Amino acid sequence: MLTSRQIAEARQRALEFYEKAHIVLTDEEKANIEVADFGLDDLEHSGLELVVYVNTDRVCAKEMVLFPHQTCPEHRHPDINGKPGKEETFRCRWGKVYLYVPGEATAHPKAKPPEGHETYYTVWHEVELNPGQQYTLLPDTLHWFQAGPEGAVISEFSTTSMDEFDIFTDPDINRIPQIVE
Amino acid sequence: MLTSRQIAEARQRALEFYEKAHIVLTDEEKANIEVADFGLDDLEHSGLELVVYVNTDRVCAKEMVLFPHQTCPEHRHPDINGKPGKEETFRCRWGKVYLYVPGEATAHPKAKPPEGHETYYTVWHEVELNPGQQYTLLPDTLHWFQAGPEGAVISEFSTTSMDEFDIFTDPDINRIPQIVE
Ligand SMILES: [Zn+2]
Ligand SMILES: [Zn+2]
Repeated sequence: MLTSRQIAEARQRALEFYEKAHIVLTDEEKANIEVADFGLDDLEHSGLELVVYVNTDRVCAKEMVLFPHQTCPEHRHPDINGKPGKEETFRCRWGKVYLYVPGEATAHPKAKPPEGHETYYTVWHEVELNPGQQYTLLPDTLHWFQAGPEGAVISEFSTTSMDEFDIFTDPDINRIPQIVE
Repeated sequence: MLTSRQIAEARQRALEFYEKAHIVLTDEEKANIEVADFGLDDLEHSGLELVVYVNTDRVCAKEMVLFPHQTCPEHRHPDINGKPGKEETFRCRWGKVYLYVPGEATAHPKAKPPEGHETYYTVWHEVELNPGQQYTLLPDTLHWFQAGPEGAVISEFSTTSMDEFDIFTDPDINRIPQIVE
């Protein structure tokens, strides 16, 4: 669980990355940056900071920050009520991100799962994304990603986000944030 | 109709705007910037430059450039085969754009339609978008937009783009580009 102080600090730190990437945010967006620790209470290693620009019943767009070596844990977006799950395109805007998807395992992957959680990282085909590079994930595809040593800013273009339906490989994960005051 | 020389010049000019906005593009994207003159043969006043990042059968994302005072002519995205038409969110990244939508006409609009084409501009509710500001358009809503005096860079997050189905108010417009060598 994140304390409101941890959230404020992570928001402040995320702002520095948006600035490095020259992403312009409104004051309201800055004040409401979403900080996700996935219930693992180790934001430095497992977490994500994001601004949701739009999320209608058809389209979603976000601007995400990963701190250096911060990891978004392995998950997939299943079909819901017979409708295809979320389709995502990640476009790196700044820094570097290592994205892992199903396929031939990369011999010497650049990213390392957060310590103690290795078993919950099962797909190992590495895609390196530098600024201007992007990758599209079809629904229900397992994926995880980790920033390089400088961190990363990544745009996500997708169908509707319904985070509560995401399926994480790690059973301890809870995507919907629990905040203690 | 655009000559290949006009296209090359417009691409070069568009690149300057992407650079001002700190938008990183790959060499392939730079070489293939789409230049649309809508068949009106007056790119300086009626036109749009864009990079399509992704356009699947569910999601589309683009980065658009408007030169100073350049106008994207009035159009709408109708329903197709009983499916809802394109839904668009415009997010201004750099410069300024004036977007016009149905609703109470703005008394002193900042934009002026391209000369001789005034009759084909029928919606006059003005929305000014500065960097970090955005607007979501539901399907089948008439809209047009014009950059301010410095030009503009605008992200578009939308459902699938099927330009050939767009309906322009000006019957002379042809969205699919005709190129002469
Ligand atoms: Zn995902
Ligand atoms: Zn449109």
